[in-house]
Amino acid sequence: MDDFRPFERMALIGLGLIGSSLGWVARRETLAKEIVGCARTEATREKALELGFIDRASPDPAACVEGADLVILCVPLGVNAAIAAAMKGALAAAAIVTDVGSVKKAVIRDVAPHIPEGVHFVPGHPVAGTEHSGPEAGFAELFEGRWCILTPPPGTDEDAVKRLSAFWRAAGSTVEIMEAEHHDLVLAITSHLPHLIAYNIVGTAADLEEVTRQEVFKYAAGGFRDFTRIAASDPVMWRDIFMNNREAVLEMLGRFIEDLTALQRTIRWDDAEALEALFRRTREIRRGVVEARQA
Amino acid sequence: MDDFRPFERMALIGLGLIGSSLGWVARRETLAKEIVGCARTEATREKALELGFIDRASPDPAACVEGADLVILCVPLGVNAAIAAAMKGALAAAAIVTDVGSVKKAVIRDVAPHIPEGVHFVPGHPVAGTEHSGPEAGFAELFEGRWCILTPPPGTDEDAVKRLSAFWRAAGSTVEIMEAEHHDLVLAITSHLPHLIAYNIVGTAADLEEVTRQEVFKYAAGGFRDFTRIAASDPVMWRDIFMNNREAVLEMLGRFIEDLTALQRTIRWDDAEALEALFRRTREIRRGVVEARQA
Repeated sequence: MDDFRPFERMALIGLGLIGSSLGWVARRETLAKEIVGCARTEATREKALELGFIDRASPDPAACVEGADLVILCVPLGVNAAIAAAMKGALAAAAIVTDVGSVKKAVIRDVAPHIPEGVHFVPGHPVAGTEHSGPEAGFAELFEGRWCILTPPPGTDEDAVKRLSAFWRAAGSTVEIMEAEHHDLVLAITSHLPHLIAYNIVGTAADLEEVTRQEVFKYAAGGFRDFTRIAASDPVMWRDIFMNNREAVLEMLGRFIEDLTALQRTIRWDDAEALEALFRRTREIRRGVVEARQA
Repeated sequence: MDDFRPFERMALIGLGLIGSSLGWVARRETLAKEIVGCARTEATREKALELGFIDRASPDPAACVEGADLVILCVPLGVNAAIAAAMKGALAAAAIVTDVGSVKKAVIRDVAPHIPEGVHFVPGHPVAGTEHSGPEAGFAELFEGRWCILTPPPGTDEDAVKRLSAFWRAAGSTVEIMEAEHHDLVLAITSHLPHLIAYNIVGTAADLEEVTRQEVFKYAAGGFRDFTRIAASDPVMWRDIFMNNREAVLEMLGRFIEDLTALQRTIRWDDAEALEALFRRTREIRRGVVEARQA
């Protein structure tokens, strides 16, 4: 598809699930000659060095990005602005700065103002993940067969977009270019709302008086367990997603509640035909997901 | 735990996911010397015979249960009453009749009146399943490590309950005895509500104007795909579950919508602390499910 040229020095800011997975795949595919990792917590840095997916570590974003031609922000959305401000003076000329956040308009709002002239900011979002977090959660195959969406604002350097696209393809992903606003709407329905609903039902189940938690745990195989898996995702990361994609999430949530209220009425009034029709229709959607190889 | 004595002849009424899985595990563990299968559709009967998890087949419930000492109803809840009425004259003395339905009060209401004196009716529910249906979907391991809940009404023959419990244990499950009403409440939250919500969000996603279906399929890995899997479950079976456990489902759905509306408000008013607190709490619940080995 395209020749990939390894980066000289890649700085990973944040060493959780995505950061560590990027480290592993960069090692395996030689995506960068040197990998520098940044994490606030000493235990995280030590674990990352011990596991071996980074070469050097520092708690200071500025120290990490020095001399790096690729900088990837892998932190919860809420800290992007502070990190961008802290590292801006140390960014190398012509470096590519990107991120992996699940919301893109907010990242552009928070990071773009801190990007110096001559440095290229290309926001990105690998649509991949698990319910596990931390430096031990990563693995090189996380991005394989998944989509990575880039949302370069108008005027972004085309070569930087091409080079970052090649990087993600070398990591196993298929790259898609999209407008930030549309990205946030698409992800609100395919990712943010599902997580919100999963968190909510697990909360509802935990608060019941007539059914004990032990019973909920024991009989989770009937469907509930899939929701608990999603609802085990990183609390801070997800708090920040909802705070930073509020309008799109509220729009999708409004539609969902409207539909659910109609479904409630369908059950109350024993409308068997309407129920079956909905259930047949959703089965078709599953076929679409399976055919798109994202099952 | 207990000595299991194989049944002479087991009649499986319905040859879908659960019926075929029962056939396979009965073959592997010799739970019955002969297995007779009942299905309305000729293609289903032929497929079952060809696959080999039954010995004989008939479209007629009465013909199937003749001489059987174990009869298992594995059909959607809505047809139980008609099948019970059709087979009642042909049931052998001292036979055990059971079922695998996801709702238990309705099964007792529909089946018990048709059970002749001297025949033992022990309602049951293996809490196991996949999103696939039909005679080709079954496999012998489906019940392994899962719970099977029996809900014998007061006065049920104790030996029949013991013998059926031993059958399910031999199939790999752990047996729990519960009151039918409590069962229906527990399953409303651990299984029925999760399915309802999954069906609903997949419907909501399919109806969007600004996000295309192709986009929903492509980016499903962000969380949505788990919901589409659940929402691909058998439409008729699930229609009947909601029609037959209406009160408990509406009760749980009411609580869920109440909680979701509060969560909507939390997002609208930017209450970061409340969001994070909920997300931390639900993560603990996941730990409980994992520890209960139902993950």
